[in-house]
Amino acid sequence: MAKELKDLTKSDENYSQWYNDLVVKAGLAENSAVRGCMVIKPYGYAIWEKMHDALDAMFKETGHQNAYFPLFIPKSFFSREANHVEGFAKECAVVTHYRLKNDPEGKGVVVDPEARLEEELIVRPTSETIIWNTYKNWIQSYRDLPILCNQWANVVRWEMRTRLFLRTAEFLWQEGHTAHATREEAIEEAEKMVHVYERFAREWMSLPVVVGHKSPNERFAGAEDTLTIEALMQDGKALQSGTSHFLGQNFAKAFDVQYVTKEGKQEYVWATSWGVSTRLMGALIMAHSDNNGLVLPPKLAPIQVVMVPIYKSADQLAAICERFDAIAAGLRAKGISVKIDDRDNVRPGFKFAEYELKGVPVRLAMGGRDMENGTIELVRRDTLEKQTISQEGLVELIEQLLGDIQQNIYQKALDYRNSMITKVDTWEEFKQVLDEKGGFISAHWDGTVETEVAIKEATKATIRCIPLDVEDEEGSCIFTGKPSHRRVLFARSY
Amino acid sequence: MAKELKDLTKSDENYSQWYNDLVVKAGLAENSAVRGCMVIKPYGYAIWEKMHDALDAMFKETGHQNAYFPLFIPKSFFSREANHVEGFAKECAVVTHYRLKNDPEGKGVVVDPEARLEEELIVRPTSETIIWNTYKNWIQSYRDLPILCNQWANVVRWEMRTRLFLRTAEFLWQEGHTAHATREEAIEEAEKMVHVYERFAREWMSLPVVVGHKSPNERFAGAEDTLTIEALMQDGKALQSGTSHFLGQNFAKAFDVQYVTKEGKQEYVWATSWGVSTRLMGALIMAHSDNNGLVLPPKLAPIQVVMVPIYKSADQLAAICERFDAIAAGLRAKGISVKIDDRDNVRPGFKFAEYELKGVPVRLAMGGRDMENGTIELVRRDTLEKQTISQEGLVELIEQLLGDIQQNIYQKALDYRNSMITKVDTWEEFKQVLDEKGGFISAHWDGTVETEVAIKEATKATIRCIPLDVEDEEGSCIFTGKPSHRRVLFARSY
Repeated sequence: MAKELKDLTKSDENYSQWYNDLVVKAGLAENSAVRGCMVIKPYGYAIWEKMHDALDAMFKETGHQNAYFPLFIPKSFFSREANHVEGFAKECAVVTHYRLKNDPEGKGVVVDPEARLEEELIVRPTSETIIWNTYKNWIQSYRDLPILCNQWANVVRWEMRTRLFLRTAEFLWQEGHTAHATREEAIEEAEKMVHVYERFAREWMSLPVVVGHKSPNERFAGAEDTLTIEALMQDGKALQSGTSHFLGQNFAKAFDVQYVTKEGKQEYVWATSWGVSTRLMGALIMAHSDNNGLVLPPKLAPIQVVMVPIYKSADQLAAICERFDAIAAGLRAKGISVKIDDRDNVRPGFKFAEYELKGVPVRLAMGGRDMENGTIELVRRDTLEKQTISQEGLVELIEQLLGDIQQNIYQKALDYRNSMITKVDTWEEFKQVLDEKGGFISAHWDGTVETEVAIKEATKATIRCIPLDVEDEEGSCIFTGKPSHRRVLFARSY
Repeated sequence: MAKELKDLTKSDENYSQWYNDLVVKAGLAENSAVRGCMVIKPYGYAIWEKMHDALDAMFKETGHQNAYFPLFIPKSFFSREANHVEGFAKECAVVTHYRLKNDPEGKGVVVDPEARLEEELIVRPTSETIIWNTYKNWIQSYRDLPILCNQWANVVRWEMRTRLFLRTAEFLWQEGHTAHATREEAIEEAEKMVHVYERFAREWMSLPVVVGHKSPNERFAGAEDTLTIEALMQDGKALQSGTSHFLGQNFAKAFDVQYVTKEGKQEYVWATSWGVSTRLMGALIMAHSDNNGLVLPPKLAPIQVVMVPIYKSADQLAAICERFDAIAAGLRAKGISVKIDDRDNVRPGFKFAEYELKGVPVRLAMGGRDMENGTIELVRRDTLEKQTISQEGLVELIEQLLGDIQQNIYQKALDYRNSMITKVDTWEEFKQVLDEKGGFISAHWDGTVETEVAIKEATKATIRCIPLDVEDEEGSCIFTGKPSHRRVLFARSY
């Protein structure tokens, strides 16, 4: 591990390699034998589980129920919504056969040509079509509305260039799919859920995000409006971290889902969908970590406190571990997760490096002198500050400290993000800031797709969002000089 | 709903139709547009979530960690373990292409023939192969062992005849995959996990199961030994409800997974795998329900107590609901889930029938006279006993009652199961009991696959298991008359 840690690429030398090294060496995930599909390792999955549990509780608090819909979608369903098929059908896994057989020529197993499906099945890239085909049978009257369902599932999008967590062929996510009687109620739902995501990012991931509307060009395929949370990574690039879509009546019309109103009229149902995925793991890692490894917000850390004994004899080890056990019991009673690392085949320095790599928020070490003095050494991962303190009142101190660390990580990310939003009013300045500083650029845009595309082609920067809290301001488009009524946020992104 | 309930097929008229009606009308699941794939509806999924959470906690208590492995498995992986490919490769979904395109002739979207995969991918029917291919990189030394991983995932087996929950093309499950340094440790793990399943079935599902070894003919494809939990349904048929496999070194050899022992020798790793699936939902429904609907053990019931107001005026409704709110607060403080049904568009009798159909363990009703007298009407779902009791001490009484119901449902299933194990010593009696009584038949068997197959062909009965607690007893095989040293359990099964 000490060697592995030394091998960790420095983030300022090669950010992309630093990220990949970190994911692999900290035991979060790795590439599998299947191109573009990852294995999420136990330590990484434990973080995802904590995200899952926190989000799931927030969904339930806001009145949603979980359900489960099929992995496969008949090919013809994709043709029903014109924009949707353009956006998703191009890159997907297609099931064409349902049987293998022994090769008559003895070359192992081969696809049985007799077992061809009448209609090909698509492995879901997202589930609007199969779900709205199902909702058709669930909805007759206004009394059946709203439907507020969420699904935790795996989805597949055949990405050509993949990166662990950020962009993989298969990923895990949740997708909410709601059905409403009115346009207003659906819009309210889409807004409510993007705010749930914002709150989750802030409170659990210590991650400040900008909430805003996507420009029409960046909307979800089939949506009338897409809301997004946009985070900033430490290399100055933006990461779209979650989206919530107002789908209008597009899917209701595509799958003929109508309801009878209180007044007895037939009307099409209004829809939203919203999702976050294992991509959040990438956001978490890239937003906070450093050249020593992961920095995890305590609320998402699988191990919150690790204890390392420093001993010269078996007797001393036993005495220290007895003391550790007592402290651990106190911490666990407060709901704090603790690991005591009494391995005898690696040295304390190796363990220190390993837990820094794994981002454990608080490390405690105790040696012979500490035993005599009633003290203990405490190192917090976010600042790497080391202090020797009294064992008395330790549990309360750590409980308080974990909250402080959670807050400090957030504040650091917020200060960085705020320092990386630059107001720009000329095209020259736009290009210069993008190349030399990065981050979000707040600039005027004439509101056309043509300009957005031209800016992307010239600079690789895209409109990340039109922030919800943006103020009206007259100005002229940095690219065309045409009039604009508000600034939008541009950035290069993942 | 009253009409729907009336439409519920009686279990003694058509057990199979009764089961299907129940699953659909109680809102647990339904068939989807994709052949053999089901939609798990919110009420059904809420039960599965409770099963998931209870099992997951038991796995973690026994030292296991969750991880996630790819949905897809390269076709060639299946050829590596000879028995495994025979068992699984025949019925599976095969991905051959990774792109669709617009039909040049304008007929919607078609598979792009240019986007053919070099090697086909199989949608996992089970994950031994992809996991052992991964473990190869995780295991070098005895210090890397044991590996105790579990995965919650969807799997696909292309079943020709499907039934909701019991046998579907796609289903949800967990699959544990562990790696050990010694044969003894792996065997111990496989046994430990089948006992976890037995305990889960007993404590959470109120379901008594027989634990035993599968006969060689019924083993998992690739296993050296398969342990099973076998439950008995109310129609006298058995349902295999969970299995735990000792895989020997078969997968380690197929994927060349060796480790260096303490003594410096290279050895192949020993393996287990174990799983339960949404099939447990079928077991739960079929084991306890009746002609009025579901009977749910309180520990798995999404709603444990429902309250129905019986009122003549809006004022009275408000007064009753105020009283309900106070009782509900007391119940919720004890961790009991409560629903107050104040819908004004359906009558109390309709609501009563609906919650009986949905298997809510305790129903409370309150009317004007109850308000005056300080009483409340209580009906327990398992026995349908009705009593009018004082509102005083109600919370404590219900807390106690939920435990009693959980136990009563178990005892009823256990008494039935015990009454349905019949010792049989002749072939005539075997056939007679099978046709006239059903259930488990405890009989002698000569231990050969030929006899097992012949009995199955003659009667459709199979050896469900050789119970762990069976006593040695000399006898002669009911079919061949050859010597036998113990009885095994036969039954017709799902």
